[in-house]
Parts: sequence; C-alpha cells; structure tokens
Amino acid sequence: MSSKNTVQVLIDGKVYTLSGYEDEDYLNRVASYINSKLAELKSAEGFRRQNRETQNTMTYLNIADDYFKCKRQADILELELENKNKELYNLKHDLIELQLKEEAARKELSGLQKKYSEQEKMIVRLETELAASRQSVKNEEG
Amino acid sequence: MSSKNTVQVLIDGKVYTLSGYEDEDYLNRVASYINSKLAELKSAEGFRRQNRETQNTMTYLNIADDYFKCKRQADILELELENKNKELYNLKHDLIELQLKEEAARKELSGLQKKYSEQEKMIVRLETELAASRQSVKNEEG
Repeated sequence: MSSKNTVQVLIDGKVYTLSGYEDEDYLNRVASYINSKLAELKSAEGFRRQNRETQNTMTYLNIADDYFKCKRQADILELELENKNKELYNLKHDLIELQLKEEAARKELSGLQKKYSEQEKMIVRLETELAASRQSVKNEEG
Repeated sequence: MSSKNTVQVLIDGKVYTLSGYEDEDYLNRVASYINSKLAELKSAEGFRRQNRETQNTMTYLNIADDYFKCKRQADILELELENKNKELYNLKHDLIELQLKEEAARKELSGLQKKYSEQEKMIVRLETELAASRQSVKNEEG
C-alpha cells in the first residue's frame, strides 16, 4: 500500500499543502489542469465581469462538465467492451464448433482411407485370382 | 443539431441562468453533483475552518480529482477495448483458417468417397468375372 504524502501545489497563484495517498506527480497534474482551466475562463471578458462567487460557480460547472463528459465517454467504452466480450464469446463458441466439425471430417477421412486401401488390396487379389483362373481355362483348352 | 438552451439551475443556494447546447436534464445533473460535492465537503470541520478562497480551491481539487479518476478509468477501458479488438482480430483469423481446413477435409472426403464407390463397382465386376471364369474351368473339367 502507498503511504500518505504531503505535497505542495500552486493553484491560482497560491501555494497549498495537500496531504493524501496520491503521489506528487498526480497532484501536480491535477493542479496544472485547474490552473489551465482558470486561465482559460479568465481569458473571457464575460467571465471577468462576474463577481467572485459566480466565477467560482462557473469554474465548478466547467470542471464538473469535463467530469460528466468523461463519464459519458467511459459509459460508451464500457458498453463497447461489453459488446466485444459478447462477440468474443460467440466467436469462441463458433471456433469450438468448427474444430469439432473439422476433427469429425478428418476422422471420417482417415477411416475411409483405411477402407479404401483394404479395397485396393482386394482388387489386386481378385485380379490375380482372375488371371490365374483364365490361365487355367487356357491350359485346359490348350 | 441541438439548439441553444437557457436553463436555470440552483447551485450552493443561488440560482444561475446557464445558456448552452446541453439539455436541461444534463445541466441539472451537473448542478446536483456540485451541490452534493459542496455538502460533502462542508460536512467536514477541517473544510469549514478554511477561508473562502481555500474552500474554493479544495472544491476545484475535489471535482478535478473525480475527473482525473474517471480519465484513468476511461484509459484502462480504452486499453482493454484495444486488447479485445486484437483478440477478436486473431480469433477471426483463426476461424477463417479453420474454415479453410474444414472445407479442404470435406472436399478430400468427398473425392475419396467417389473413388471408393468406383472401387466397389470394380470389385463386384471382378467377382462376377472370377465366378464366370471358375465356372468355365469347372465346365471344362466336367
């Protein structure tokens, strides 16, 4: 388990000492995101015109909007992942079914190959017997 | 395209008129999330003790933390999805390969079945000829 860290971050020009389980890099990235967001908002005259309280609320709304957009995206990804899992499940099922069919065909083929070569031997035997029998007929006639 | 909406929301006990492309339901959900977050923070004595500016920054940090956690989750989901897509791609490839193998086995089987039944006919023919030839020998002897 990670231990508790004490990290100083700079937000909106002021230094804050944060204490928590998140590492310094993470907290700095969060602080940097907030500073960018504040800089972006303050660049708009419509924002600067507002009183401090409204500015705060607008900032809350802006960050929360990023969060909700992310959640929407995560929901879509989760749904996509669920569909991919279903597709994978079905494909694995198809693959097993096909493997069984392929194995059955190979087995049938190997059985038939055995019977075919037995027949081949039988043909050779019959042909030999027939040749011998015809030779007998010739001899009798001769 | 959706048209611009003007929606009134209640945040931290004050009414704000928001104008944007998001629908009323979405903006109310965002406002409700912010109010819950503020209520949660204000329930802690450590938060209430801070001056207003620090309270605002703590609120930014808390909402931004939810956003970053969501982003981390979305990144994991995206990676999982990427892996599933690779797995699907490979499985589809295996399936096609197996389909070809199964088709080849079926084709070989059907070819061999044809040759086998030709052999069967040949055996019947040879047996008939052999019986006739042996009959001739018997007749000659008799």
